[in-house]
Amino acid sequence: MKPQRAEIISIGNEVLAGYTVNTNATYISRQLMSIGLPVHWVTTIADEQEEILRALQTASTRADVVLITGGLGPTPDDITKKTISEFFHVGMAINSEVLKDVKRFLKERDRPLTEINKQQALLPLCDAYIRNPRGTAPGLIFRREKRHFYFMPGVPDEMKYMVREFIVNDLKKTLHLIPVHNRLLRTIGFPESFLLQRLNPILKKYPQIQIAFLPRQIGVDLRFRITTEQRREVEKLDRLVQLIREEISEYIFTDQEIELEEVLGQLLSEQKLTVSVAESFSGGLIGDLLTNIPGSSVYFLGDLVTYSNASKMQLLNVQKSTLEKFGAVSKQTAVEMVRGVQQLMHSDCSMATTGIAGPGGATETKPVGLAYIAVRCKDKEIVKEFHFGSERRVNKRRGANSAMELLRRLLLNIE
Amino acid sequence: MKPQRAEIISIGNEVLAGYTVNTNATYISRQLMSIGLPVHWVTTIADEQEEILRALQTASTRADVVLITGGLGPTPDDITKKTISEFFHVGMAINSEVLKDVKRFLKERDRPLTEINKQQALLPLCDAYIRNPRGTAPGLIFRREKRHFYFMPGVPDEMKYMVREFIVNDLKKTLHLIPVHNRLLRTIGFPESFLLQRLNPILKKYPQIQIAFLPRQIGVDLRFRITTEQRREVEKLDRLVQLIREEISEYIFTDQEIELEEVLGQLLSEQKLTVSVAESFSGGLIGDLLTNIPGSSVYFLGDLVTYSNASKMQLLNVQKSTLEKFGAVSKQTAVEMVRGVQQLMHSDCSMATTGIAGPGGATETKPVGLAYIAVRCKDKEIVKEFHFGSERRVNKRRGANSAMELLRRLLLNIE
Repeated sequence: MKPQRAEIISIGNEVLAGYTVNTNATYISRQLMSIGLPVHWVTTIADEQEEILRALQTASTRADVVLITGGLGPTPDDITKKTISEFFHVGMAINSEVLKDVKRFLKERDRPLTEINKQQALLPLCDAYIRNPRGTAPGLIFRREKRHFYFMPGVPDEMKYMVREFIVNDLKKTLHLIPVHNRLLRTIGFPESFLLQRLNPILKKYPQIQIAFLPRQIGVDLRFRITTEQRREVEKLDRLVQLIREEISEYIFTDQEIELEEVLGQLLSEQKLTVSVAESFSGGLIGDLLTNIPGSSVYFLGDLVTYSNASKMQLLNVQKSTLEKFGAVSKQTAVEMVRGVQQLMHSDCSMATTGIAGPGGATETKPVGLAYIAVRCKDKEIVKEFHFGSERRVNKRRGANSAMELLRRLLLNIE
Repeated sequence: MKPQRAEIISIGNEVLAGYTVNTNATYISRQLMSIGLPVHWVTTIADEQEEILRALQTASTRADVVLITGGLGPTPDDITKKTISEFFHVGMAINSEVLKDVKRFLKERDRPLTEINKQQALLPLCDAYIRNPRGTAPGLIFRREKRHFYFMPGVPDEMKYMVREFIVNDLKKTLHLIPVHNRLLRTIGFPESFLLQRLNPILKKYPQIQIAFLPRQIGVDLRFRITTEQRREVEKLDRLVQLIREEISEYIFTDQEIELEEVLGQLLSEQKLTVSVAESFSGGLIGDLLTNIPGSSVYFLGDLVTYSNASKMQLLNVQKSTLEKFGAVSKQTAVEMVRGVQQLMHSDCSMATTGIAGPGGATETKPVGLAYIAVRCKDKEIVKEFHFGSERRVNKRRGANSAMELLRRLLLNIE
């Protein structure tokens, strides 16, 4: 059987102008990939009749499923619905069910029903529509010669709701999709080029499995995928993942779609430990990342961003003689910071960063990107020197990641 | 004269799989828009010969300029270059200049010259190539019947370099582009629907100017654009912007492509004031944002992320009786925090946040999203109650923005 393929058509002048990143397409692609329906084309066009017609025409010749976002808004000059009617040779009519939904939506928000709102219920005669509890524009479904067309609003929140709550299930029911099996290993601290070299002998033995090396700021994601109905093939997938896990175990921080701060939070929770932070180089980013995780208040006690020398001395008890002799950007200062914050906050563990984030601040002996990071847990301690790059934000992020990774390794007794 | 239009073709399986967001297209669109060459189509396809040929064919029928990213990597199974040769009916040959560049690039990095690297210099016979100091794959230019094709690697850093340093100038020289004039007003605190209503009477008088309302997390960006060679038309643009500025002046925080944290930093610098922060609700985000700005160490003294009640009392001198009587999430606690951190850090100004970021932590009287934010400068003080939503990260971000906006208003004596 020929594998079925999807196309996304994004209608959006803002995307074309470069004002908006097309994250809608990314979201849809991932959702469809997870049910075994790969997206093979993404087409972004202007909100113009001719362009919409042409894109629908092209998609009709090649895709089994076409998902269209944007252009269904309430503005009166909106031409998408008229164009849809024309393309499918259908008329338009007020849909009373949708009108009820629109009225309810507005009433719940104490907003008046305007003529423009009423127009939202004027729809091309489609095969089915998708209700929209997050807004006033419903989704539209057309089915033609085994092809499925889903029209959705461009508002990310409304589009995501429709895909997640309706379209994914509709596709599963309507198409015969071969199940897809995904596995993920997130690595940190192993350069991509060496990773490929190291793993190649193992990967070569599993040619049937699709593998992607995806570099991110923190490290490289390894994604494995097989599309199959056979259990034995899935077992092969798991065997490959297990082999790789064994080969580079200490560099893998998770096999889930989560970030390092969540992994660290889970470790701290499991080991019933608390943590505090003292940041100079990373300027509050570690605290921000840790507190992005719901429930982090259980293990996260606080974070002192001590940017000035005075605050390092006053709050963290860094010695004046240390700052004078070695400077604020030194191994010695990092150690005194990590000890100082642990003591002050009465936490089990602590992290500290000091460095030169750039672009200014470099001295003859201390270049931009130099950083010292210390972590502590009870009376075990690690401190390391890092050489990051020249971009301030990237440096902060790499510093924060390095601090969390050092603490993860300390908690797991790695090295 | 018919306006000239560009198409972007992104070759990338990672984008189609939803693993990577197509920020390359966003970057190119903005760069081209700034020189008056709007992108009218973005097409994302798989790295397959048939797809590449078809996309190039389609683009040749409609676009004046075609920019292709991706598929020029060093991997031996790369089929893009072969496909390009076929499409333009040209042969391939080793380009000795490019080979020199590749050798130099590798030598500078102490990397050996492999057979794969050498292949980078094997190029379709194009009309010109673009040197790549950031990597080993050069860009390729073909010119056919007034159409211009630019092929670039998909690595963002290499692609951006080529667009910024070469392609933009090449297009300016080669095409007769009508200058485009852009203006921006970034607003905060004025809901989009009311904004449109309020400004419509003014906007209607300037039908020749393109206006986009772009909602962002912080507020709404107003973008104005006119493509013209006539100075009088540009004067109209500036008159419109001036009228809108007068109409909603206090809600406009900048007319530059910068964020609120940078605007606030500039104000603090100008007024020679220092700032410190005490964060509970926003968990370090304000410190992170402020320290994203180069040179912030001049005015930013430090940030105490006091997540626990104990740390609020110990570090910020919040009174036990206040916490017991009003709770940590209260106007009274916010005020004691903002005063405490100002005193402790000896700063001129200070900001403080306390609230329930969610999803947990709500009580009968205090729902998720409730927050109190206080700002202080010398002995002037503002404290306000906010009701944000249910999403933790969005809440943190809105809290941080609100704190910075309150301080901006205090510094400018708005309200």
